[in-house]
Amino acid sequence: MSHKIINVTVRDVRFPTSLEQHGSDAMHTDPDYSTAYVVIDTDYGLKGFGFTFTLGKGTEIVVCAVEALAGLVVGKFLQDIVSDFRGFYRLLTSDSQMRWLGPEKGVIHLATAAVLNAVWDLWARAEGKPLWKLLVDMDPKQIVSCIDFRYITDALTEEEALDILMKAQDGKQHREDRMLKEGYPAYTTSCAWLGYSDQRLKQLCTDALKSGWTKFKVKVGADLEDDIRRCRLIRQMIGPSNTLMMDANQRWGVAEAISWVSSLAEFKPLWIEEPTSPDDILGHAAISKALAPLGIGVATGEQCHSRVMFKQFLQASALQFVQIDSCRLGSVNENLAVLLMAHKFQVPVCPHAGGVGLCELVQHLILFDYIGVSGSLSDRMCEYVDHLHEHFTSPVVIQDAHYMPPKEPGYSCEMLESTVQRHQYPDGDVWKLIINK
Amino acid sequence: MSHKIINVTVRDVRFPTSLEQHGSDAMHTDPDYSTAYVVIDTDYGLKGFGFTFTLGKGTEIVVCAVEALAGLVVGKFLQDIVSDFRGFYRLLTSDSQMRWLGPEKGVIHLATAAVLNAVWDLWARAEGKPLWKLLVDMDPKQIVSCIDFRYITDALTEEEALDILMKAQDGKQHREDRMLKEGYPAYTTSCAWLGYSDQRLKQLCTDALKSGWTKFKVKVGADLEDDIRRCRLIRQMIGPSNTLMMDANQRWGVAEAISWVSSLAEFKPLWIEEPTSPDDILGHAAISKALAPLGIGVATGEQCHSRVMFKQFLQASALQFVQIDSCRLGSVNENLAVLLMAHKFQVPVCPHAGGVGLCELVQHLILFDYIGVSGSLSDRMCEYVDHLHEHFTSPVVIQDAHYMPPKEPGYSCEMLESTVQRHQYPDGDVWKLIINK
Repeated sequence: MSHKIINVTVRDVRFPTSLEQHGSDAMHTDPDYSTAYVVIDTDYGLKGFGFTFTLGKGTEIVVCAVEALAGLVVGKFLQDIVSDFRGFYRLLTSDSQMRWLGPEKGVIHLATAAVLNAVWDLWARAEGKPLWKLLVDMDPKQIVSCIDFRYITDALTEEEALDILMKAQDGKQHREDRMLKEGYPAYTTSCAWLGYSDQRLKQLCTDALKSGWTKFKVKVGADLEDDIRRCRLIRQMIGPSNTLMMDANQRWGVAEAISWVSSLAEFKPLWIEEPTSPDDILGHAAISKALAPLGIGVATGEQCHSRVMFKQFLQASALQFVQIDSCRLGSVNENLAVLLMAHKFQVPVCPHAGGVGLCELVQHLILFDYIGVSGSLSDRMCEYVDHLHEHFTSPVVIQDAHYMPPKEPGYSCEMLESTVQRHQYPDGDVWKLIINK
Repeated sequence: MSHKIINVTVRDVRFPTSLEQHGSDAMHTDPDYSTAYVVIDTDYGLKGFGFTFTLGKGTEIVVCAVEALAGLVVGKFLQDIVSDFRGFYRLLTSDSQMRWLGPEKGVIHLATAAVLNAVWDLWARAEGKPLWKLLVDMDPKQIVSCIDFRYITDALTEEEALDILMKAQDGKQHREDRMLKEGYPAYTTSCAWLGYSDQRLKQLCTDALKSGWTKFKVKVGADLEDDIRRCRLIRQMIGPSNTLMMDANQRWGVAEAISWVSSLAEFKPLWIEEPTSPDDILGHAAISKALAPLGIGVATGEQCHSRVMFKQFLQASALQFVQIDSCRLGSVNENLAVLLMAHKFQVPVCPHAGGVGLCELVQHLILFDYIGVSGSLSDRMCEYVDHLHEHFTSPVVIQDAHYMPPKEPGYSCEMLESTVQRHQYPDGDVWKLIINK
């Protein structure tokens, strides 16, 4: 069937998470987890759902950007898009007038992610497969044809990408079976948001340990004494053999990052995440070099805005853990480029998730990474945050601290229509109540 | 007087430049030069004007972003803003919810530039001075207090910045007098847009030589044979002693850039501008290294989105000419940081201009660079394009290929109100005519 795209709608959907300090960190003290939520309608009734993630204010700007991009999408046939997906990606990211607004960064790229996520969801639904399975079953040549190699061929050529994918055909079925049985390992960020009290942190750690969690992330960076107290507490709670990661959310300069993290080294973190500006490749390289003797790696990526930036982080040995995000990069297309580059540079991918819906999306990408690219679980795990899953038609399934592979067709982007209506900003019932308080 | 900001308005103002291929290059084939145009109203009637530059489609997204930022500005007093300008800059760029949309890049940063340009215009008007003179007369301590040093202290500390400014006090009056008499040297990009015919190129070169121009930039990158023909033609027209620069507008990958530019080396360009992705610091470093033996430098900056990126370009020796832009960085505040870093690294600043209004604005910054920072004209010149100046209340004055310092109070951002009304998109008369054709 042809699936002609006849309409693209976008809505501003916000959750008032700041009321309870969920998601609070050293730079984002009061996020309202939100999405610019896209629905693609086709002529025979099949729909595609997609979104990008935001923190509340300014979501309307991304909505405006999606509306500007929609003109490039309406009227296209799904089959034409996917038969030259690289060309379609280029059409959205290199419009002669709009690329000035990026290129491939900030609001316009978040909007591109929302639109392309919906296109991938539509494609997976049309094929009757969950997205991870669509990718796993896809001919390596077609996967490569989805990627825009502009500006990255000095790190990864099309031929090298194809070679990686061909080599990973070996043992693929075994890895798929393993994932279906065991799931993909996860870590939790739900216990130690910066705005939580020590009492709450303790209780959440106790609960998480009981549920089988072994890897925990704590937010740091606002106050050193406070960080030491909280890190000591959580290390005591989880014991020496479980894994602890720290996340500073860009709070520091380069020298400050090195000295602050050195002061926390006694708590044996696996990584320090976002120690400084997400744009500072050379700064991250300096921090990586300084912390390596302490056995602490550097992780970053949730605000790394393009494959060109990831390329340089890898070239400069500026990170030891690649944290892809499903909604900041140009959807699956650009994330495929990053998975392949990370594999070439032998750096593990540990996706960013949480927010609203990020777990639902990124599980597909990391499942594909294991089954179809890296073939490894060594030093690899996917972030998990226990919030807002109930608003999705196919929420993630966590068993014994593992993501269980989704089975429904699509990219798990669809929200309950009742949720969307109630949380639309500013006219949904949830917001009317808050605004009128 | 107190000058309380009581209103911030923003309009989408577009010029249909694509109709005549003005501004066409290898990546932007049909720009409609545009602005998100901001007017700040204060309680006693003083106004501030500012804008950011765009290429047509998507300007409405920047307008939406300015509206989101306006809430942080209305109600503030000018004196409070400028007495802690660093804090105000941080307020706009680090809003806990909106910084996710950047941070400090893309649409939200373009909008920040528009708002802050208007604030600087307001300040200069309140002081009764053109902006360059406001900066020249300012206490170095106050200049430093306008700059956000977050993420750049590994390259430039506050103390180093102050030291640079103090040293430049020596000979300042002499340099100011020289500028008032001779003006700041300019080069022209008006002769050789990619969409112009050879006949037109010849005629424009002839005219420009007659008007005293000695430095010329040609657009390249779409087709090598075409570039060779056009570069040969322009080098023949201007002779061996005049200066030629080339601009590829991000068309190439790293290896392609090196081989393409090597093929054009016989035409003796001073620099190749934007050879690849504006985000590719390490790529620019590789290109710089490869082209140095040919005597060709690398220039970039018009799409370099923040001081953190410029910092790394300087640290990595990835450029030999720093091309600041008045509308992409966070206004004067962030450009001051870049001027000071460039001086520390001893790399000349040659601003990007053209578009609509960019010449009007950036002349202030480069005048200040000469008088108050670098004290040098060696290898320095400011871009000039002969378009759309008639729409400003204080258009640039060029004499014998030099920018003559503006004398009117403000930042030269104000457009004729009749222009704004006729060019508003989509309801102004100019656009109604085009849309209804």
